[in-house]
Amino acid sequence: MSRVSRRTLLTGGLGLTGLGVGAAAAGVGLAREDAQPEPSTLPFFGVHQSGIVTPMQTHASFIGLDLLDRSDHDALRGILRMWSQDAANLTQGKAGFSDTEPELASTPARLSVAVGLGRGAFTSPALAGRRPSWLRPLPAFAIDRLEERWGQTDVVVHVASDDPMTLAHAVRAITAPVRRRTRLRWVQQGFHHGRNLFGQVDGTVQPADDRHDDLVWDDGSEQGWMAGGTSLVLRRIAMNMDTWEALDRHGRELSTGRTLDNGAPLTGSNEHDQPVFTATRGGIPVIPESSHIARAHQRSDREQFLRRPYNYDVPPDSGLIFAAYQRDPVVQYVPVQQRLSDADALNEWTTPIGSAVYAMLPGAREYLGETLFGDGG
Amino acid sequence: MSRVSRRTLLTGGLGLTGLGVGAAAAGVGLAREDAQPEPSTLPFFGVHQSGIVTPMQTHASFIGLDLLDRSDHDALRGILRMWSQDAANLTQGKAGFSDTEPELASTPARLSVAVGLGRGAFTSPALAGRRPSWLRPLPAFAIDRLEERWGQTDVVVHVASDDPMTLAHAVRAITAPVRRRTRLRWVQQGFHHGRNLFGQVDGTVQPADDRHDDLVWDDGSEQGWMAGGTSLVLRRIAMNMDTWEALDRHGRELSTGRTLDNGAPLTGSNEHDQPVFTATRGGIPVIPESSHIARAHQRSDREQFLRRPYNYDVPPDSGLIFAAYQRDPVVQYVPVQQRLSDADALNEWTTPIGSAVYAMLPGAREYLGETLFGDGG
Ligand code: HEM
Ligand code: HEM
Repeated sequence: MSRVSRRTLLTGGLGLTGLGVGAAAAGVGLAREDAQPEPSTLPFFGVHQSGIVTPMQTHASFIGLDLLDRSDHDALRGILRMWSQDAANLTQGKAGFSDTEPELASTPARLSVAVGLGRGAFTSPALAGRRPSWLRPLPAFAIDRLEERWGQTDVVVHVASDDPMTLAHAVRAITAPVRRRTRLRWVQQGFHHGRNLFGQVDGTVQPADDRHDDLVWDDGSEQGWMAGGTSLVLRRIAMNMDTWEALDRHGRELSTGRTLDNGAPLTGSNEHDQPVFTATRGGIPVIPESSHIARAHQRSDREQFLRRPYNYDVPPDSGLIFAAYQRDPVVQYVPVQQRLSDADALNEWTTPIGSAVYAMLPGAREYLGETLFGDGG
Repeated sequence: MSRVSRRTLLTGGLGLTGLGVGAAAAGVGLAREDAQPEPSTLPFFGVHQSGIVTPMQTHASFIGLDLLDRSDHDALRGILRMWSQDAANLTQGKAGFSDTEPELASTPARLSVAVGLGRGAFTSPALAGRRPSWLRPLPAFAIDRLEERWGQTDVVVHVASDDPMTLAHAVRAITAPVRRRTRLRWVQQGFHHGRNLFGQVDGTVQPADDRHDDLVWDDGSEQGWMAGGTSLVLRRIAMNMDTWEALDRHGRELSTGRTLDNGAPLTGSNEHDQPVFTATRGGIPVIPESSHIARAHQRSDREQFLRRPYNYDVPPDSGLIFAAYQRDPVVQYVPVQQRLSDADALNEWTTPIGSAVYAMLPGAREYLGETLFGDGG
């Protein structure tokens, strides 16, 4: 490569994401003039943490950590303060507090850092009374083949960005300074595409934007400090590509209830057409009752949650890092998961191997967790 | 997210890379009008394989495979024919031969698939005489801490794309159909950024474009069938982030011989300034003799090779997938590697844990390897 082309590539590479995101926002189907490039930074401070209802970034890592001394809630507060300071800088394209590679921070590419607490983080006497009642393991499901190495941790940090280097740098900035106080249990790396590795359009049906306050964000009615926070159910679900690919296309579409072509329900022609679960052809439901969407579809208004599926691909293993956000997982998530466990055609090719539940903190005015520790915590 | 924004995101996501690459090619320093978007497909057929001198894509996987029956060169030919057929389609945005997720093939995003053969592939009597003389393990270096799990394989496939989903899909298309005839030893996943995880600008000094025919591409003078091919030295080098970050900025720059700011040599101010290794300040070399670039810099015209460093980040491990292409690794690569092993300041923070050498096939007119098997092979 010539020097000129090398330089172009380098500066281009560094500048890619900001421009690339604009291009993504422009979209294939939209006229150019309508295009509003999405900003390349997301706010760190606010009522809610960024990275939850935010349009999904391309790359994400979920970091699972255990606290070495669960009884030391001051240590936890210290960790959250430090992460807040670093994330406030990194998300805005500035170097972290003790950042020794500040150049790697200059392209935030919609970097977000969102922190959640697992049940174990509420062990200290000062915090025990502040644990949301729903913050406990999901019931055991018959389909589960859970592996300890992808299990519940005391803390989770969800880091996401459109740039893989920005992500790697931020993950290091989060993990390196807390090693004396935490144990790194896992990092789950994934990418978002709009389709999953089965080739399915994934993420279509979501709660309406104007229902977020009601369905996603906690209003503090049970635990005042949680107002503006939410819950995360994080499931690692292995997908068996071999057996899936052995199935013919029609079989794959029947088990999903949607076409592979554009994700339209089998009763419609466009992705966002409403599925008609009652439609029959020759007396047989067009969307099979055992299909994934027939089983997963809400049967009451509360049975809704925000789905944020990331693909993981660690050859020869692949699957979904399935992240669901809702105000109350027991009321909103569990009934749906139970129906899927009972009879979801997709179960033949999918296996839950990890499961954890977290209280995602409210957004920070000064630092993450401030309301938890607020009054003498 | 509303339905509209979800759809925008989806189509935007699928279209991202083509547009994004255009933006990358435009570069930060170039006026918009000058921008020529790079095409989003790379040729599969040609004199050389794509993906070698090609400007680096954002994401890459190196797949290391062993042949289950090394004596069966017909099987090897069959594998190469099949890969060629699939790669010819996938790189052009078409579904692979037995592709069950054709939708995942629609955004090639500069997908390239390049195949190389390790020493073991030349075991059969018909091929033994066709092994290039340089196709043997590198000498053992004092710095090596090689792990078997990242070692030499019979075959390597280098798959790269600007889109992580395209890459994942192509890797599956390559690996799945050959499982009865090969053993998957490793997949090394990396990303390219222009900087490595130490924060250094990496990849600056390269052979000039007009020297590729001479320095990179084989001319067939030793093994006629190799004309248009090249050799790949693939080293996996762990980078110790902790100890590196403990060093102050000046120390890091001295050990590299270049600034962290913009990668300029310590004797210059811009990335592409020529380093002046003879310059001294107060009698002391400005670029220390033990610095990485002083040790790595060519001491003869032959000591040049194309470097293609990808970052790997598998927390808590990170480092470089160091890929070097040259006509003859013994003559061009080994002397430099030996000097680095003898005394490179960077050795304190870097450890080679994998090493392999491959004959990268010439480009295909009909199928990869055609010249190897050409005359009665
Ligand atoms: C590997 C596992 C899974 C795969 C491959 C998968 C795939 C899909 C696909 C392709 C759709 C249709 C498009 C869409 O609306 O996004 C869908 C819908 C849905 N999925 Fe999943 N899913 C998986 C696991 C889960 C889990 C664990 C849950 C929750 C317990 C879930 C809940 C839902 C819901 C609520 C819908 C929307 C149903 C509707 O109202 O139409 N999925 N999923
Ligand atoms: C983790 C290991 C390594 C790191 C972090 C690293 C980093 C760098 C950096 C930052 C530069 C300066 C910018 C540039 O020209 O790209 C450089 C230059 C170079 N490196 Fe490395 N490198 C590593 C391993 C190697 C290896 C294994 C070789 C070959 C045996 C090598 C050969 C070279 C050469 C030839 C140059 C250009 C020297 C010149 O003429 O100025 N490097 N490397």
